[in-house]
Amino acid sequence: MAVRLTTAQDFSTLIDKYDTWMFDCDGVIWRGDHMIEGVIDVLRMLRGRNKKIVFVTNNASKSRKSYKTKFDQLGVPVSVDEIYGSAYAAAVYLSSVLKLPKSKKAYVVGMQGLEEELAEEGISYIGGTDPADNTLIPFSLADFTPDPDVAAVVCGLDTSINYTKLSKAFQHLLKNEGCHFVATNGDSTFPSAHGLLPGAGAIWAPLQSATGRDPVCTGKPSTIMLDCIKAKIDYDPKRTIIVGDRLDTDILFGQRGGLSTLLVLTGITSEAEIYGPNPSRIIPDFVARSLGDLRVLLGQPN
Amino acid sequence: MAVRLTTAQDFSTLIDKYDTWMFDCDGVIWRGDHMIEGVIDVLRMLRGRNKKIVFVTNNASKSRKSYKTKFDQLGVPVSVDEIYGSAYAAAVYLSSVLKLPKSKKAYVVGMQGLEEELAEEGISYIGGTDPADNTLIPFSLADFTPDPDVAAVVCGLDTSINYTKLSKAFQHLLKNEGCHFVATNGDSTFPSAHGLLPGAGAIWAPLQSATGRDPVCTGKPSTIMLDCIKAKIDYDPKRTIIVGDRLDTDILFGQRGGLSTLLVLTGITSEAEIYGPNPSRIIPDFVARSLGDLRVLLGQPN
Repeated sequence: MAVRLTTAQDFSTLIDKYDTWMFDCDGVIWRGDHMIEGVIDVLRMLRGRNKKIVFVTNNASKSRKSYKTKFDQLGVPVSVDEIYGSAYAAAVYLSSVLKLPKSKKAYVVGMQGLEEELAEEGISYIGGTDPADNTLIPFSLADFTPDPDVAAVVCGLDTSINYTKLSKAFQHLLKNEGCHFVATNGDSTFPSAHGLLPGAGAIWAPLQSATGRDPVCTGKPSTIMLDCIKAKIDYDPKRTIIVGDRLDTDILFGQRGGLSTLLVLTGITSEAEIYGPNPSRIIPDFVARSLGDLRVLLGQPN
Repeated sequence: MAVRLTTAQDFSTLIDKYDTWMFDCDGVIWRGDHMIEGVIDVLRMLRGRNKKIVFVTNNASKSRKSYKTKFDQLGVPVSVDEIYGSAYAAAVYLSSVLKLPKSKKAYVVGMQGLEEELAEEGISYIGGTDPADNTLIPFSLADFTPDPDVAAVVCGLDTSINYTKLSKAFQHLLKNEGCHFVATNGDSTFPSAHGLLPGAGAIWAPLQSATGRDPVCTGKPSTIMLDCIKAKIDYDPKRTIIVGDRLDTDILFGQRGGLSTLLVLTGITSEAEIYGPNPSRIIPDFVARSLGDLRVLLGQPN
């Protein structure tokens, strides 16, 4: 049974229990380009109490550096090392787990953030933001041969998705023997500032349909993401909590990693999915209205 | 066990058994813009023997009128009434089964052929080939409100698929209560002149992912397509055969309709899928290398 947190005492007890705080971003820290009320103060308070802070996001449209810029613009001081994105996890998976040889490359169905993370990990790529692949001009296989060096198709959210990019990715998966199929995450939607939009999971769905193959997803709830964090920081799972707005990504990710879990209701999940007549199979340890509600502890002694 | 047809005697016996011949097009009659060898002669021979001929295609990029133009250009005499496309079946489904009121409209993820069939059935629509929805300019919900009169999202093959179109279709399905989700067909790929490309099933896969809903598919193997044919022509299922290249559409369609089925190997299915160690669960009555092989009967007495 998820414990509903509402009072200052509830939040005070919670803060005392955990040294490392992991946060999802969309729907927890911000919605689109607007900070969720009170969250800036809460993050400052947690830092004041010497909590370790980590941001774990499945949104693959931005690299960690771009995320830092976004945090800066929203007035939240963070370091790049505190940010773990699914694009970063995908790049690390290609370089460290699949160990893609230098002579090989990835075909990208995704945006600049994914390209930046691949470049950081030394992975060559084609597709992505290449103007030749961002077109609505009719695509014909008569003018196309798969690049034999493409050893992986990597997909993330791509708001420039089009038939040329899908067809080229499909052909590489079909023709290049052993070509890996990797996706940053499986979120079928994401909360933009003005409502839900199709997410990365919807972007690679055509390739799953056409090939009959499921991609390896590197973002939450995959433990590949947790392995990326473990490789960089020390934390005690028993004294670590993840705060998220999605049951099937954030909360499941925490449960798989042996972390405690706090669901906030500022994003995609409604209270009825936890306490209603047909509750989800994935139930968090705690539920709060908003991360901003922890503001009630501001000015209280540490 | 599927009977393998190879000799003139095999084909002669086959022709005698069936009065009505239904044909899939892509991979049976043509590949891309090239007729499959011998097929023009075989169709002429069947007409010479007074067989009733019907073309049943899942390719929704063309209307029946456009298909007639394609047949004309390839030198095959047909009438529009002999052609049944999945776009036509979708339009008939909206008008005759869902009985969409005149005040309502469809949001189209699809091409001109689907629009033409909707217009023929008196269905108003938006989206589709509208230049405003065929763009790679970033889409924002800030500038968009779902049209409350959209009572159905209708998807077909769309080689101009893009994020704006997917997002608008998704928003209508999400926000408009009772909005129907209809697709021309579920083929995840289709055989173009130069190889496989993502099909209609891949085009609506993002919407299935984002909404968690399956569309009603009107093309083969759905019996909705057969109902469209039944409404227009008389045929005796016992003396009707469908010739196709796909097990999960053409052959299954025939089996559901109580027709005999002939698989040809000029399209998507290989012989190993029938006679190999792990055969398909969908097995046709007959298998031939190509429809063109029936040419061997040319000049024989009827």
